[in-house]
Amino acid sequence: MGRPAFIGIDWGNTHRRAMLLAADGSLLAQHADGQGMLACEGRFGPALQALLQIWPEAHEVPVVMAGAIGSINGWQEVPYVDARTPLRDLPAHLVPLRDEAFRGRCRLVPGVCLEGEGGQVDVMRGEETQLLGALELLGDAASDGWYLLPGTHSKWVRLEQGAVVAQRTYMSGELFALLRDRGSLAAWMQDASGWDDAVFERAADELSDDALSQALFTVRARVAAHRMPGSDVPACVSGVLLGAEWRDLQRHGRPDGAVRLIGEPALVRLHTLCARRAGVAVQALDVQQVQLKAWQALMKPR
Amino acid sequence: MGRPAFIGIDWGNTHRRAMLLAADGSLLAQHADGQGMLACEGRFGPALQALLQIWPEAHEVPVVMAGAIGSINGWQEVPYVDARTPLRDLPAHLVPLRDEAFRGRCRLVPGVCLEGEGGQVDVMRGEETQLLGALELLGDAASDGWYLLPGTHSKWVRLEQGAVVAQRTYMSGELFALLRDRGSLAAWMQDASGWDDAVFERAADELSDDALSQALFTVRARVAAHRMPGSDVPACVSGVLLGAEWRDLQRHGRPDGAVRLIGEPALVRLHTLCARRAGVAVQALDVQQVQLKAWQALMKPR
Repeated sequence: MGRPAFIGIDWGNTHRRAMLLAADGSLLAQHADGQGMLACEGRFGPALQALLQIWPEAHEVPVVMAGAIGSINGWQEVPYVDARTPLRDLPAHLVPLRDEAFRGRCRLVPGVCLEGEGGQVDVMRGEETQLLGALELLGDAASDGWYLLPGTHSKWVRLEQGAVVAQRTYMSGELFALLRDRGSLAAWMQDASGWDDAVFERAADELSDDALSQALFTVRARVAAHRMPGSDVPACVSGVLLGAEWRDLQRHGRPDGAVRLIGEPALVRLHTLCARRAGVAVQALDVQQVQLKAWQALMKPR
Repeated sequence: MGRPAFIGIDWGNTHRRAMLLAADGSLLAQHADGQGMLACEGRFGPALQALLQIWPEAHEVPVVMAGAIGSINGWQEVPYVDARTPLRDLPAHLVPLRDEAFRGRCRLVPGVCLEGEGGQVDVMRGEETQLLGALELLGDAASDGWYLLPGTHSKWVRLEQGAVVAQRTYMSGELFALLRDRGSLAAWMQDASGWDDAVFERAADELSDDALSQALFTVRARVAAHRMPGSDVPACVSGVLLGAEWRDLQRHGRPDGAVRLIGEPALVRLHTLCARRAGVAVQALDVQQVQLKAWQALMKPR
């Protein structure tokens, strides 16, 4: 077993996932918890300290952090790099954490900003690190194409020659959570035990052509008019939200190859159902493997 | 001044508006409060009692209630009438309130359900009463056409010969409130003091063509990338949501006449901005006058 040499932390809005690596890049240990950026309520130093104390044997190894922690609402805002920056150059763009207690030890990965015509702007933080890992995993020759990273903010990213050339983000996960917790659909969204894939798929097909805010009301109208049981609401709302992403894909042109999926298995499964109906091939990448590859690339001395 | 003869209550999800009418239909008094269906938490009897006690001189007059109070989540679910039912026939479809304490005195207005091709379902509760009032106000000959009743659930309704022939509802107001109170845009949505109509109109133009869940993320991305001040977020999100309604109108065909607006002045103003950009004429109807006309029609003995 190698000696600890590096800690990588994917510190997002709601979750935090850390990996401890040896000098040869092998994974020594990992840890995940719910101490995301929002849960820390600004007390980032103590939160990081508590995490690092899990691995006392690694009390001096360098730490690299990616994700929302470097955002405008995070610990230290790290300027985005332009999307034309090759992802493999990310190690050269790490930014030292200014906090006195960790100075010299911690660095942050910058997010990526893509600006298109007509003021179109899209950004990512954390996903650029996973995409770097995917590049490492697939190799340069095979890595061109579309990637889908579902979650709170579902990201569709097109890579060409190792750089981001197109990017669209959908607030699907966030809208699902908001609608589940409050409002006129919440009463039926708390309990997903009646989940039915057929309901999800039908909603993705039928309702995604409507404006999203109309499709969501249609879900309510069906229940209110006793045309659909309330137990179908979670699958139906999920179908509306994810279906809107796939419907949008048709407007922007069909992917020329398989869409690579990087995300939680439950979401990957639902997107795979959508892909099948859209006649698009998918390739699910192992999130943990992708993340490990990313940290390996970021720990290399330059 | 006439003697009290009738009480009409528009009892919605979040608000309650009551009018006391004399036998000749003139308005004697009115009352509005925040004791909507949700605030009552199931204690509808005491809530109604408290309202009626405001007018002790009217302790025996009939009461008619419209709105969410008759919904699946309300006091007593009243089956919808089919949309082909002429709105002028609504007085014949009132349903007695079963509650012992009010038996014989209170009746509920049924909502309207429209079923279209392909399982399309839309429903209204409360708006059918306002539309009846609009019919009374405008007269049969002039009442055909589109009506827009903005709010928590923004309703576009087409009347022909006094009946609902098309209906589309958008969750615009509800989504705005959910995004304002929680989630990744909330930090910038609490304070609308920086509201700028130009930002609202630009968002309605530019972002409404994207999928709604993507347009909402674009708002966040613009702030995160310092391309837009956070103070522009409320107007921008509002533009995305209302713009989506007007964009949808273009897909479904331009209205042949003026769109009649029935709603709060602030929302009517924003929709009037959208209408101007879409080149569509609007006619704002006075909500209070519409509601009074409705109660006059519903109090007539049949």
